[in-house]
Amino acid sequence: FDKDLYEGNELAGVVTGLAWTPVGGDILFIETNLSRGKGNLTLSGQLGDVMKESAMTALSYLKANAADLEIDYKIFQHYDLHIHVPQGAVPKDGPSAGITILTSMASIYTQRKIKKNLAMTGEITLRGKVLPVGGIKEKILAAKRAKIKEIILCYRNQKDVEEIGEEYTNGLTFHYVDMVQDVLEIALLKKKVDNPIRFELPEEKK
Amino acid sequence: FDKDLYEGNELAGVVTGLAWTPVGGDILFIETNLSRGKGNLTLSGQLGDVMKESAMTALSYLKANAADLEIDYKIFQHYDLHIHVPQGAVPKDGPSAGITILTSMASIYTQRKIKKNLAMTGEITLRGKVLPVGGIKEKILAAKRAKIKEIILCYRNQKDVEEIGEEYTNGLTFHYVDMVQDVLEIALLKKKVDNPIRFELPEEKK
Amino acid sequence: FDKDLYEGNELAGVVTGLAWTPVGGDILFIETNLSRGKGNLTLSGQLGDVMKESAMTALSYLKANAADLEIDYKIFQHYDLHIHVPQGAVPKDGPSAGITILTSMASIYTQRKIKKNLAMTGEITLRGKVLPVGGIKEKILAAKRAKIKEIILCYRNQKDVEEIGEEYTNGLTFHYVDMVQDVLEIALLKKKVDNPIRFELPEEKK
Amino acid sequence: FDKDLYEGNELAGVVTGLAWTPVGGDILFIETNLSRGKGNLTLSGQLGDVMKESAMTALSYLKANAADLEIDYKIFQHYDLHIHVPQGAVPKDGPSAGITILTSMASIYTQRKIKKNLAMTGEITLRGKVLPVGGIKEKILAAKRAKIKEIILCYRNQKDVEEIGEEYTNGLTFHYVDMVQDVLEIALLKKKVDNPIRFELPEEKK
Amino acid sequence: FDKDLYEGNELAGVVTGLAWTPVGGDILFIETNLSRGKGNLTLSGQLGDVMKESAMTALSYLKANAADLEIDYKIFQHYDLHIHVPQGAVPKDGPSAGITILTSMASIYTQRKIKKNLAMTGEITLRGKVLPVGGIKEKILAAKRAKIKEIILCYRNQKDVEEIGEEYTNGLTFHYVDMVQDVLEIALLKKKVDNPIRFELPEEKK
Amino acid sequence: FDKDLYEGNELAGVVTGLAWTPVGGDILFIETNLSRGKGNLTLSGQLGDVMKESAMTALSYLKANAADLEIDYKIFQHYDLHIHVPQGAVPKDGPSAGITILTSMASIYTQRKIKKNLAMTGEITLRGKVLPVGGIKEKILAAKRAKIKEIILCYRNQKDVEEIGEEYTNGLTFHYVDMVQDVLEIALLKKKVDNPIRFELPEEKK
Ligand SMILES: [Ca+2]
Ligand SMILES: [Ca+2]
Ligand SMILES: [Ca+2]
Ligand SMILES: [Ca+2]
Ligand SMILES: [Ca+2]
Ligand SMILES: [Ca+2]
Ligand SMILES: [Ca+2]
Ligand SMILES: [Ca+2]
Ligand SMILES: [Ca+2]
Ligand SMILES: [Ca+2]
Ligand SMILES: [Ca+2]
Ligand SMILES: [Ca+2]
Repeated sequence: FDKDLYEGNELAGVVTGLAWTPVGGDILFIETNLSRGKGNLTLSGQLGDVMKESAMTALSYLKANAADLEIDYKIFQHYDLHIHVPQGAVPKDGPSAGITILTSMASIYTQRKIKKNLAMTGEITLRGKVLPVGGIKEKILAAKRAKIKEIILCYRNQKDVEEIGEEYTNGLTFHYVDMVQDVLEIALLKKKVDNPIRFELPEEKK
Repeated sequence: FDKDLYEGNELAGVVTGLAWTPVGGDILFIETNLSRGKGNLTLSGQLGDVMKESAMTALSYLKANAADLEIDYKIFQHYDLHIHVPQGAVPKDGPSAGITILTSMASIYTQRKIKKNLAMTGEITLRGKVLPVGGIKEKILAAKRAKIKEIILCYRNQKDVEEIGEEYTNGLTFHYVDMVQDVLEIALLKKKVDNPIRFELPEEKK
Repeated sequence: FDKDLYEGNELAGVVTGLAWTPVGGDILFIETNLSRGKGNLTLSGQLGDVMKESAMTALSYLKANAADLEIDYKIFQHYDLHIHVPQGAVPKDGPSAGITILTSMASIYTQRKIKKNLAMTGEITLRGKVLPVGGIKEKILAAKRAKIKEIILCYRNQKDVEEIGEEYTNGLTFHYVDMVQDVLEIALLKKKVDNPIRFELPEEKK
Repeated sequence: FDKDLYEGNELAGVVTGLAWTPVGGDILFIETNLSRGKGNLTLSGQLGDVMKESAMTALSYLKANAADLEIDYKIFQHYDLHIHVPQGAVPKDGPSAGITILTSMASIYTQRKIKKNLAMTGEITLRGKVLPVGGIKEKILAAKRAKIKEIILCYRNQKDVEEIGEEYTNGLTFHYVDMVQDVLEIALLKKKVDNPIRFELPEEKK
Repeated sequence: FDKDLYEGNELAGVVTGLAWTPVGGDILFIETNLSRGKGNLTLSGQLGDVMKESAMTALSYLKANAADLEIDYKIFQHYDLHIHVPQGAVPKDGPSAGITILTSMASIYTQRKIKKNLAMTGEITLRGKVLPVGGIKEKILAAKRAKIKEIILCYRNQKDVEEIGEEYTNGLTFHYVDMVQDVLEIALLKKKVDNPIRFELPEEKK
Repeated sequence: FDKDLYEGNELAGVVTGLAWTPVGGDILFIETNLSRGKGNLTLSGQLGDVMKESAMTALSYLKANAADLEIDYKIFQHYDLHIHVPQGAVPKDGPSAGITILTSMASIYTQRKIKKNLAMTGEITLRGKVLPVGGIKEKILAAKRAKIKEIILCYRNQKDVEEIGEEYTNGLTFHYVDMVQDVLEIALLKKKVDNPIRFELPEEKK
């Protein structure tokens, strides 16, 4: 996983996640972009099957709830979505990037900015529930090293945070959530990115 | 499989199943959603081949019997269906979720609510028969732990229930069924969910 | 394979076959249904490659000879066909269900009833020949147990029947056939099922 | 491979080939049929990769040379072709059925009869050359057993025939060929089969 | 690989290559044909991945440089291309047939004849460079046995030719090339084959 | 990998990369071309999964940022892109060709020349970041052997260059970059290649 420090929120679709690796926690970036096309989904970054299904679940959730986020459903049909998780040669798997992927997608389709200095980890389900994940201690340490200030977790991970000594968690604000609506309310700013995509969509026909 | 308690019936397409695992019974949730598309089917949750075929069989049954449930067949052509079974990293297989998947699909396509505090387990066949499944004792114990009140089973599983001591089954109502019409009659309420999808379908042409 | 008794002929597309298994003969059911679509074929029930090719061969035979059965060829293009062989978790393979699958397809496309208390086993070829299969003794015993009254076999299996003691075959009527036309003449009743599908087909254009 | 005797030439697309098997030569039947569709090719009978490529090569040859056989190219676009080689459970491979497959295709697309009591074996290439194959002695013995009267071979297999004692070859007429045009000239009769397909093709447009 | 002698240049798309095999050099034939279709590419002859990529690279080169050869780009869209390398049962791989495949394609699309008694070996790249290949000595010996008179090679294989004793190379003319334009200038005659395909292409629209 | 010397910049889409191999560094060429089609992407040269994903990431980046480079997005829809990395038989993998592939694509779509005597190595991410790669010393030595004058690297590889003795780096100019915009600014000349493709694109409709 990527050893970079957190880098700001200038771009839509770039969201910071927290990963557990055999050698400790790490931050990782979910990157997405959109280009005119036919609604195809491309996943890259040596993602395993569980992580790919996580992305497909996130996309279905977003499509089914597009109206709530004021996303024109025609964007899903006329733009291709690519999700990449650097570094390209490092295999990655597991469900814990679910809410990070969902947030990245929500940002790119709405062109809204992501809150600064924020990271998150949690599985999503198709109805929008957030499920707890493992490796919380290592992930929190990695977030601190990367100067992250706020972390979103499933409320059922609160006990894992409380088990960690306060010296490791001070300076960090934790958001405990139950549903992805809560995640998006925290993570997705009202403000759009500079030079947002102006989506070009065909007139309704058929 | 998911260790959560049962969580109500506010959402269409979320149905509680009963699963057997090497470490005992468990409840699991089938989640489905629909989004505008071309009739594609997506399955996620690390489902094995038998379980995938179970979902395909359920969908074919529903399509062939759509008129009985007052489902406009054009929804099948103009919306994509996604079925997800949390937790995303846990492999699942077997035919015993057949009636649960079918009920979840019937709920999402009709937008009708599922009866509260209900769980079910049973294989389906393409003509709508319900077949018996294994692990009944463990599944019933898991249902009780999750505060389930009613359980739907194949009538040929009745003998398995009767072999279990009454202390394990009291407080539970069992529905023994032969055909999936019976399942849907019990599980699917007349009432629609709040804010049901208003399907947008093209005018008939061709 | 399915341990159920034979269950009548109320539904189109449900035909009783005879299977050989390592633990003896058994009856099995071929189930098919049709739903509006684009002519796709779905096979389920953990079918092996030989059995899948058997189904593809049966379908091609039926399409090439549709006029003889008064099937409108447009049904093949505007309805999807699903063939399922319960039980879903039991792997099945081999060519001996060929005539059973063909008969099931003929029934669903014509909506004609299948003769009652009838079972069959035999390989088909693309030109409609019926070829002999193995396990005849075990299959006949299973048919008797399931209260089957008539059995269709390849004429080249007659010698296998004659080798079995009369105590095992009395009460059973055997039909020895050479071509699938013979099979359909015996198995497919003139009468349609109750509430047959009324196929909705586009006007010819192009 | 199929142990049947040769069975006449009443049907288009049924051609007799000669196969080598570990237990001796055998005759085999190539069966083809056409049904209205979109030009898809289906191969069945547990064919290996080399035999599948042989069929694809034969079809390309036929398409590229359709005018010579007075085949309307639109048939290739508006009918699906299925090639089956019974028995369905017996794996088959190798290039030696090339000319048999080609002849079967030529017969089904032209609806012309195949010469009676004729068998053949030989590889084809894309430009229509016939290449020699192995197992000639065993194949000839099998042909005699099946009452075949004429055999088509590559001219480079003539030496293999001459090495066999005359007692095995008398009563048989051998046709040694270089190109598939020679094969079709011998095998394909001018006369059409009874009740030939009347191809329904759209008016030229575009 | 094919043991035939060289056979003339009457047909478009048949080009002679040189192959290295564990038992010595050999000549091989690349055969191509075109039939009305949708621009699909079929490869046969048990070709390995490297050889398949070689063919795809040759086709892309030809498409990108179609105007130089006066090939109407609509042929690529309205005709299917098949490339076959006899013998069908012999696995083949490696990049050294690159220029032979390209020349075969150029001949079939232009319907121009190939120079007589010519063979070639060399890898191509997408920009049209010709790269050196191995097994030169064995390939030259095979070419002589097959009565080949001229050979095209990469200029960087000249040193390999010079290392071979003159007794093996006399009577042979070598053409050392750098780019595929040089190959085509030598190999592709101005004269078309007898009875060239008259391509039927739709009027430009869109 | 290709042992050729650097060969100039006459052609669009040919860019020089630096590769690490078990036997030392090497230069490699990325070659791309475009032909009229439907927007398909073909990759060849025995590329591994990571390298293929690198190419897909580069293409998505280019599509999403096409306007910045004045590329008409319709070219992506009406031309097929092929990327080849000679030599065809040498397996290649890893993310380090990312910026080279991106530059090659940018050149072919804009038809702009690449700066002479330039090589590069670096991973790209979907948002256009350049990440550091390994094998810097070996790559620099290979670049010098090939008479390369300028090298583009990630700024985080600067420390690797500084660790190498000056005798190895003198005569070379290093460009340390953070984002792919920097790469393109250095590598992509304003001048178009001779005889640039004149893209033929349909009038906007729909
Ligand atoms: Ca990191
Ligand atoms: Ca997740
Ligand atoms: Ca649970
Ligand atoms: Ca089931
Ligand atoms: Ca049974
Ligand atoms: Ca069969
Ligand atoms: Ca036989
Ligand atoms: Ca052959
Ligand atoms: Ca040869
Ligand atoms: Ca090559
Ligand atoms: Ca090199
Ligand atoms: Ca890279």
